[in-house]
Amino acid sequence: LLLVNERFILPYFGTKEKEEKEADTIDESNPVIIAGFGHFGSTLGRFLRASGIRATILDNDSDRVDLLRKMGFKVFYGDATRVDILKSAGAGEARILIAAIDSPEINFDLVEKTKKIFPNLTVMVRAKSRLDAYELLDMGINDVYRESLDTSLRLGVDVLTKLGFRKYSAVRASQNFIKYDEAALRELARHRHDQSDYIFTTREQIQIQEQMLNKDREVNPNINDHAWDSDSFEEKSDNGNN
Amino acid sequence: LLLVNERFILPYFGTKEKEEKEADTIDESNPVIIAGFGHFGSTLGRFLRASGIRATILDNDSDRVDLLRKMGFKVFYGDATRVDILKSAGAGEARILIAAIDSPEINFDLVEKTKKIFPNLTVMVRAKSRLDAYELLDMGINDVYRESLDTSLRLGVDVLTKLGFRKYSAVRASQNFIKYDEAALRELARHRHDQSDYIFTTREQIQIQEQMLNKDREVNPNINDHAWDSDSFEEKSDNGNN
Repeated sequence: LLLVNERFILPYFGTKEKEEKEADTIDESNPVIIAGFGHFGSTLGRFLRASGIRATILDNDSDRVDLLRKMGFKVFYGDATRVDILKSAGAGEARILIAAIDSPEINFDLVEKTKKIFPNLTVMVRAKSRLDAYELLDMGINDVYRESLDTSLRLGVDVLTKLGFRKYSAVRASQNFIKYDEAALRELARHRHDQSDYIFTTREQIQIQEQMLNKDREVNPNINDHAWDSDSFEEKSDNGNN
Repeated sequence: LLLVNERFILPYFGTKEKEEKEADTIDESNPVIIAGFGHFGSTLGRFLRASGIRATILDNDSDRVDLLRKMGFKVFYGDATRVDILKSAGAGEARILIAAIDSPEINFDLVEKTKKIFPNLTVMVRAKSRLDAYELLDMGINDVYRESLDTSLRLGVDVLTKLGFRKYSAVRASQNFIKYDEAALRELARHRHDQSDYIFTTREQIQIQEQMLNKDREVNPNINDHAWDSDSFEEKSDNGNN
């Protein structure tokens, strides 16, 4: 029984202790607050730190907070949707709050509260999906980042270069794709509540995107500079790593 | 009861019909196969199509397949981890297979089977997290894409520009960050089975990354060209959108 107690009661004391530690550092005030320090938030946090920008980090997963502290990160344990915790993290003085919590519901809750209580903060938000992005646009958020958008396009750029496109042209195409897709997202957000209207508008937007990228290729002939030929691929793949 | 039957039996017939439709198109052979057409795969698929590259798409969610077809995508309904389906999708002739299935377990299963049965295919893989990326590196996959890496850094670039960095310098720093982080990932993969060793090496790698980015800033003085000043932020935020 003692063992069981140690296992199940210690984490509770751990949590209490963390809350007290948190109160110690109210005097710290940074230009950036990051709420949520999972894969998304921690990459961002490392990048900002490496660029010389200090950020106050909030995370509600006590195991992760422990591990991150051992790795040298300064992380506050706490629920970022609690206004008192946001205040002590410096939300009244900071310039930017990044909402990067794993759960979309909690992240949305944070965004709503922040907009209401700290209207001077610029809120930049991680979105899990296109549908979440629509909701955030409706909430009046301009800085919405769909979490897998850029990496899927980097993979696409690498596919194009493996197939013979020039790297420069492929990267340029992916940048234009993001630009058109962000515009389409704003257009589609207004049509999404009627399924047949949404499907029609999606088809239309996809065609517009393709036409615009085709036009980019014509304007910038470098992008046609690839030696794409399906026969040669089959040969290459026959001579592969057997 | 009839209503219940219609509800629960019709989707089954729907599925049967899809499998038959699938068999029709065995003759189609594209240089690229995309397995998994969620947020990651569909963005990639739209980008490739807009770039003039045909891809064979496999997805195992019949509702999603229906919706995507209505939107004008050519999608095969089927379990990509089944070797017969992979064969009929042209895995024997294609050049690149992209494993972008939502479930990491199923995605890993696909990667293992593809490497074994279609060794000529270049396999490019979506990873959910850093831990999944370690597993994939262990499996001998070189083209591993952590799904939220690039978007979190684009957000980071936008934070830096809001704080006064020049866009060019911030983008350059993010590109270098990815380069160093990919190298660190390969180093850390070897240390991850011993927790204290892993924590030590992580701290070390983070320090190395920061030193290298600092060095980049010294070599390329443009990156110091920002008017970062914490007092001016507070002023700006006082004059914000109240």
